[in-house]
Order: sequence, then C-alpha cells, then structure tokens
Amino acid sequence: MSVMILGRKELESVLKMDEVIEGVKSVYQLKARGDTVVWPLVSHEFTDKTAVMDIRSGGVFGSEQIHGLKMLNNFPFNKDQGLPPFNGMLMVFDSETGIPLGVMDAAYITCMRTGAAGAIGAQALARKDSQSVLLLGAGKQAEFQIAAILTAIPGIKRIFIGDLLDPMHGQSFAKECPLRLKRHFDITKDNCCFEAVSDLETAARESDIIITITPSRQPIIQKEWIRPGTHLSCIGADMEGKEEIDPQIFVKARIFADDIEQCIRVGELERPIRENIISKEAISGEIGQVLCGKKQGRLCDEDITIFDATGLALLDLVTGKRAIAQAKKLGLGLNAEI
Amino acid sequence: MSVMILGRKELESVLKMDEVIEGVKSVYQLKARGDTVVWPLVSHEFTDKTAVMDIRSGGVFGSEQIHGLKMLNNFPFNKDQGLPPFNGMLMVFDSETGIPLGVMDAAYITCMRTGAAGAIGAQALARKDSQSVLLLGAGKQAEFQIAAILTAIPGIKRIFIGDLLDPMHGQSFAKECPLRLKRHFDITKDNCCFEAVSDLETAARESDIIITITPSRQPIIQKEWIRPGTHLSCIGADMEGKEEIDPQIFVKARIFADDIEQCIRVGELERPIRENIISKEAISGEIGQVLCGKKQGRLCDEDITIFDATGLALLDLVTGKRAIAQAKKLGLGLNAEI
Repeated sequence: MSVMILGRKELESVLKMDEVIEGVKSVYQLKARGDTVVWPLVSHEFTDKTAVMDIRSGGVFGSEQIHGLKMLNNFPFNKDQGLPPFNGMLMVFDSETGIPLGVMDAAYITCMRTGAAGAIGAQALARKDSQSVLLLGAGKQAEFQIAAILTAIPGIKRIFIGDLLDPMHGQSFAKECPLRLKRHFDITKDNCCFEAVSDLETAARESDIIITITPSRQPIIQKEWIRPGTHLSCIGADMEGKEEIDPQIFVKARIFADDIEQCIRVGELERPIRENIISKEAISGEIGQVLCGKKQGRLCDEDITIFDATGLALLDLVTGKRAIAQAKKLGLGLNAEI
Repeated sequence: MSVMILGRKELESVLKMDEVIEGVKSVYQLKARGDTVVWPLVSHEFTDKTAVMDIRSGGVFGSEQIHGLKMLNNFPFNKDQGLPPFNGMLMVFDSETGIPLGVMDAAYITCMRTGAAGAIGAQALARKDSQSVLLLGAGKQAEFQIAAILTAIPGIKRIFIGDLLDPMHGQSFAKECPLRLKRHFDITKDNCCFEAVSDLETAARESDIIITITPSRQPIIQKEWIRPGTHLSCIGADMEGKEEIDPQIFVKARIFADDIEQCIRVGELERPIRENIISKEAISGEIGQVLCGKKQGRLCDEDITIFDATGLALLDLVTGKRAIAQAKKLGLGLNAEI
C-alpha cells in the first residue's frame, strides 16, 4: 500500500489557491446537501503546561469520498526552546476502500483553506462591484487571505492592511505584499495597491469588503464604521471568547455561517447570540446553501452581509486530497510503502 | 521537522518481541500509576456498506511521554476487489513538545503488541513451572502469540494448536511454526514441540497456560477441561458479543483485566458480569497493578488465573515509539520533512 507523504515544502509547490478555493466550495456545497459528517472533537489539556491538543475528524462523501482526521498540538512554551509551537498532521483516507491516501503537515493546509474560506464568503456575499478590502490583521494568515481574495475577486484594486498590535509590522507587510504574492502564490497584481493603515475607521468606511483575521478577544471593528453594502468575512474568532467586530453590526446584517452550531459556540456569532443581541433565527443560513443556490445571499446592494467562518476539518481533508492528486501529477512527495 | 515514516516491511525489521514486551509492560505499569489517559473513542459506520472506522487515541506519560492516535478502517468488501480489508495508520507525538515523531502502518504493530499482551498476562499470572500451552486459534495473530510466550517464558516445551474452524490449517500452521518463528522473529526453539490438536479437551487438561485468540462468539473452552493451576489469557474477545471461554470458569478464578471497564464492556468479562455469574468485585484488578507490585497475582499453585485483554491504543503508541527509536539506530525508515 503506497501512501503519499507531503511536507510543507511539497505542499507549497502543489497547492494552487484557485484549486483550494474550488475544493473548499465543494465541501461547503456537499455539507449543504447532507453529504458530510463531522465526528466528535477529541481534545486534551496537558497538565503542568498550557499545552493543548485536539483531534478533528470527519468525512466528505458525494463527489469527494474521503474521510480522515487532523491532529493539532499547541505548545506555546516551545518558543522558549526555539521549537515551533503549532504542530499538526493530517491523514486522508479513501471512503470507498478505507485505504490511506496521504499523510501531511497540517499547518500550511490550514492557512490555505482558511484563506479560501474568507474569500469564498466575500465572493458569494459581497457586492459584485467590490474593489476595496480592509484586512484586519497582518499575522501569518494575512497573505493567504489576500492571495485568496485576489484569486476569487479579480476586480479588487485596493487592500488596506491594519495591524493594531504591531503597526510597524503592518507597514512592512504591506510593502512586501506584491513580492510575497508573486513568490508564494505566483500572483501578480500590478493594478492593486496595498496600504498599511492606522486609522481603521477611515479604511473601513472606504472598504467594500472587510476581512478580520486576528486573535482578538474584544471587538475592533465598530458598528458606526460600516457603511451600507459592506461585506464582512469574520475569520479570526474560532474559539470561545474570541471576537473581532462590534456585535451590534449583526443586528441589521444578513448573516451566514460555515456551520451554524459551531459559529454560535465558538465563532463571531457567539457573543451576539449569547447576549440576545440577535436570535438564532436571524442567521440566514450556511454558506454552502448560498453556493448551492438553496438560499439567496445578498438581497440588495445596501445589505450588510456577514460570513462567520470557524473552520472545519473537512476543508483540510479536501485540500489534502487535491494536494495528493497534484503531487502525483508532478512526481512530488514521498511515496511510502505502508 | 523530520518525521519517521515506517511501513510494514521496516516494522518487521525493527520491532523485536522482547522490546515490544518491555514496552507493553511499561504502559500497563504507567496505567496502574495513573500516568496514562485514554481519550474518547470516535467511530463511524459507513452507509450502504458494512464498513466501519474508528479512531483510538490517548497518552502515555511518566517515563514514556508520548501521545497520539490510531485510525483503523475495516472494509470487509475490499476482499472482493483484491484489496486488504483492514487498513490503519498510527501517529505518535512527543508529549513534551507536541512535535510529531512518526507515522506508521498500524496492522503489524497491533499484532506484535497483542502477542506481547497475551504473554505478559501468562508471565505475570501462570505458575512459574509452566511448560505447556494450548493456543486456541491459528489465524494471522497466532504466530505473534507464540513468539511472545516463548520470549516471555523460555521454559515452554509444548505448544498445542487448536483451530476449530479449519483443522487442516491448524496442522500446516503447527508444522510451519519453527520456520515462521525463525524467519519472522529470529527465534529458534529446538526443545519446544508444536502439535496441532483436534481434541481440545485433552489438550486443555494437559496445558499449564491457555491462550485464546479467535473471533468466536460462543464459549469454546469448557469449565470441566480446566485443571487447578491453569492460567488463561483471553485475547480474542475485544468487542460486544465475542467470547471464547465458558463464563463459569470465572467463578473460582483469580481475574485480572488490561482495563476493567473496557473488559466488562467488550471483553471476555462482558458475559459473566452481564449475567451476574460473577460480580465486578470478583475482578482482582488490572494487570499493571500486578506488574507494579501493587496487587498480588497468583496466590497459590492451585489458583486458576485469567487475564482478559481487550487492547489499548496506548500499547500501539509505545510500540510505535520503540520502532522509531530502533529505526533511527539502524538507519531504516523514511525521514520525511514535514
């Protein structure tokens, strides 16, 4: 039995953002059709440490026919010893035979599919004439969000980048953006400018799309900053207590989730629902229903739309499947006899 | 980050039965000291198929410091297409850093550690002067049980092999035993004879140790066949409904389990407890407590002792750790940059 082993280097070579976006869309649509399953989360806190691990698993059936799992370890103290704090592995199996297809580093795939998720929300829900984006957060996920939105919405001409924690870093990141996009994603966008901003309010007022990708635990984007017609993809909040936008923004917005129950539990929707700022019924649906044509996304140009994405291991599995197929085609990766 | 990838071929080269036995003992002892954790089982039945998958995970801390998981897929219909029905992968992580150590085929490791478990039970509980063994079952696990018992108890001189389902296979298996032991385990035992038996009763009456390793769902070994002083390692029963020995044997026996709760749920202990043939209090303890010296195993030469082993993913993890260390030493396996 030959199993494909892919490290970060191979994944960087084989994963193309447009294919990752197609894969993530496929999962969202299959989920809306009832062709996916998410198995119970297994997690553990290591004693005497702040370290945690979790195992997320599930299956994507229908046209994909894969199942598997992702094990992630977060050991913050590793940094003190010069070791990476996040370590994870993904295993993908064929659901028609149970035979293992591949094993790979989970960190890079997580970045790619998270970028794809933010962009898919914007592509499905933002105004068709959208040209400007405010990206809140310039951490390691930021370039993936930018690569994805430029792939999904080629008409984007301005990207504002706000990094409240480290404005200097935001500036250097904005400057490096064209080079990073070229080098890491083979994307050249001469007609798009990248601007670091410290005045988030002005940037938000000038943006058609806002993407939030920070570890914030209090609202940063305020309700007053949001003009009619804006779309927000809220990506950073993926565990209890995390939030990036004023919960009042939800009140008049048209709201979609990647997974409604999970978003209510750990997403940007956690606080507005818990504090009864909106009811669960105010959530219009899941993004997959929009992509399937089962629900209408934006109803008019004045709608404020929100996509709350908390992440699904199913996205990793399908992205992993794409990586394996591409690696086979290009003769990359290790073929291990198992 | 370099991760060791081991296929079946490498595992056959690097895993030595004596080291596997030491590893499994280490887990049992750490379990008795509270230094292990078993995380919730995740399982799934695929629709329109008889296929099932499960994910077993946990951690072995103390002197071992590893955690991880084993994913097993059982797709019986694969046989019709000439594909293996069982496929599984094991992932081992360092519990002090969360960094992946290795990924490997799970099938061979499962056989090795299951052999070790049966032998450890016998070594800890059988009479010290034991010389004869009845092995019930001559399937793919049988040679591992034999290799392990000969490693753990060098004084064994006669091994009776009973295969009720396929007596002809039992005969050829017994004949091939010396060659298999030499070839697969580098074990030479000129002073031990291997005899296929069809008369189980006589063989049982002549045996100091009985090891059961069949998929049976009804008792095969009868109470009347068991003379005082016999030890039984019950290995085959590992899911609801499976059983191999007359539940009445438990009545006067000194009983140990690998994990009491799991054995009551799915092991040989399932029926005697469910049918109130014995009470839970009749179970003397877990094998790790005997190995630690916290509980006394056999009290006298006349005791009938039983070890009920249902298998723990922790055994695979520790065996995997041993395999990785040995592969590094011998320069075997694939080192994948992850």
